[in-house]
Amino acid sequence: MSTDLRLSLVVLSDRCSRGEAEDGSGPALVEWLAARGHDGVPVEIIPDECELIAERLRALCDGGDVDVVVTCGGTGVSVRDVTPEATRAVIDRELPGFGEAMRAASAEKSPHAIISRALAGLRGTVLVINLPGSPRAAVENLAAVWPAVAHTVAKAGGDDAPCAAP
Amino acid sequence: MSTDLRLSLVVLSDRCSRGEAEDGSGPALVEWLAARGHDGVPVEIIPDECELIAERLRALCDGGDVDVVVTCGGTGVSVRDVTPEATRAVIDRELPGFGEAMRAASAEKSPHAIISRALAGLRGTVLVINLPGSPRAAVENLAAVWPAVAHTVAKAGGDDAPCAAP
Amino acid sequence: MSTDLRLSLVVLSDRCSRGEAEDGSGPALVEWLAARGHDGVPVEIIPDECELIAERLRALCDGGDVDVVVTCGGTGVSVRDVTPEATRAVIDRELPGFGEAMRAASAEKSPHAIISRALAGLRGTVLVINLPGSPRAAVENLAAVWPAVAHTVAKAGGDDAPCAAP
Repeated sequence: MSTDLRLSLVVLSDRCSRGEAEDGSGPALVEWLAARGHDGVPVEIIPDECELIAERLRALCDGGDVDVVVTCGGTGVSVRDVTPEATRAVIDRELPGFGEAMRAASAEKSPHAIISRALAGLRGTVLVINLPGSPRAAVENLAAVWPAVAHTVAKAGGDDAPCAAP
Repeated sequence: MSTDLRLSLVVLSDRCSRGEAEDGSGPALVEWLAARGHDGVPVEIIPDECELIAERLRALCDGGDVDVVVTCGGTGVSVRDVTPEATRAVIDRELPGFGEAMRAASAEKSPHAIISRALAGLRGTVLVINLPGSPRAAVENLAAVWPAVAHTVAKAGGDDAPCAAP
Repeated sequence: MSTDLRLSLVVLSDRCSRGEAEDGSGPALVEWLAARGHDGVPVEIIPDECELIAERLRALCDGGDVDVVVTCGGTGVSVRDVTPEATRAVIDRELPGFGEAMRAASAEKSPHAIISRALAGLRGTVLVINLPGSPRAAVENLAAVWPAVAHTVAKAGGDDAPCAAP
């Protein structure tokens, strides 16, 4: 079922966007998704600029070609970490359970995980999910919410069958 | 102690309010509450209209006859799911721990549970709690927060004894 | 590493600020922190007045002498519990994972713990953390987030090393 999802990945990193560092999280997520039947998910890398991120998220969500936009990076507390702010500015409805589940899962691995301000929400029928920037944490966080992603997209898109658990 | 609580139940469902489907969640919750000493909790069914829900919540909270208003349904991501928005519009103070606890408990049963946007809060001294719409999830979620309900109502109503754990 | 942290403690209590009750939470937290290498953390007790609390938090955060302000008390649902409101008014960025982790840890001990509206966030580079008012719950909650505190302060202060888990 979930193999029909159209995904897009946006990596937020000043350094990687300038070519000063190599992005490891994008490839790690692409590989993880490919192993679940989602081949060739496109990745773009943009700097940690709030307005730029918001603009890009709006374009992806409103273009009609994507069901899920996954961001990676910029969820911490450095002054350049602005992904949650940009995300909140573009979503219509927040899904607090995604952030909660990601932090709870990550906290089992590292006590630092609670620093993440990652959130998720819907812009129209498109699901936006923030992931933290380290390759390991990004994959861990995506895995924590992945079982609910296809269901969320189906429901947001108008499937009005009763929402009972499978 | 908790048997003195005055409860009221509001089921949100377009279909059930039009008589096109039979509500299973209201009866399931009424039975669950009766088993805990709360007999004959009143149930009303209204459609998924944000302003209508907010109006009804305000009337119940401000009427002086109810300590806890439990809503059921409309917490998901369909375009007609507006219970959290209506609830947020009427509460004075949100209690984030209720939503967190409900999702954490439900997520142990179903990975889809994180989709719920259910929240809880106080309007004056009346506690409003959102539950998801499926009978099983509704009961599961209520059970997850139930041990704190009477305590919350007592504290909100002015009991200023130290808040130490029992 | 964390022994360099400059901490300050603000206890919120109408009764204790008037000398009608003795504060037990401040001493319990001071002792807990001393056992972790933080000797002589200053404690002040002020009444549950929202504007007064916000003013005091602003002064502590903006004075340049403190890395972490820990508040204790006023996180419940009584009409005089206003610490989360005062905190939200002064922070720039909320850290939702702190409140989630504190409630999840406390809920294992007491089902009443979900009533806490405690939050945490940053004002500039200073971390503000709300704790509930009972001595036992205060220490439990601080212990739940403590392993992330020094890391959060370091990151907020400009350490831009990659944020990988230790």
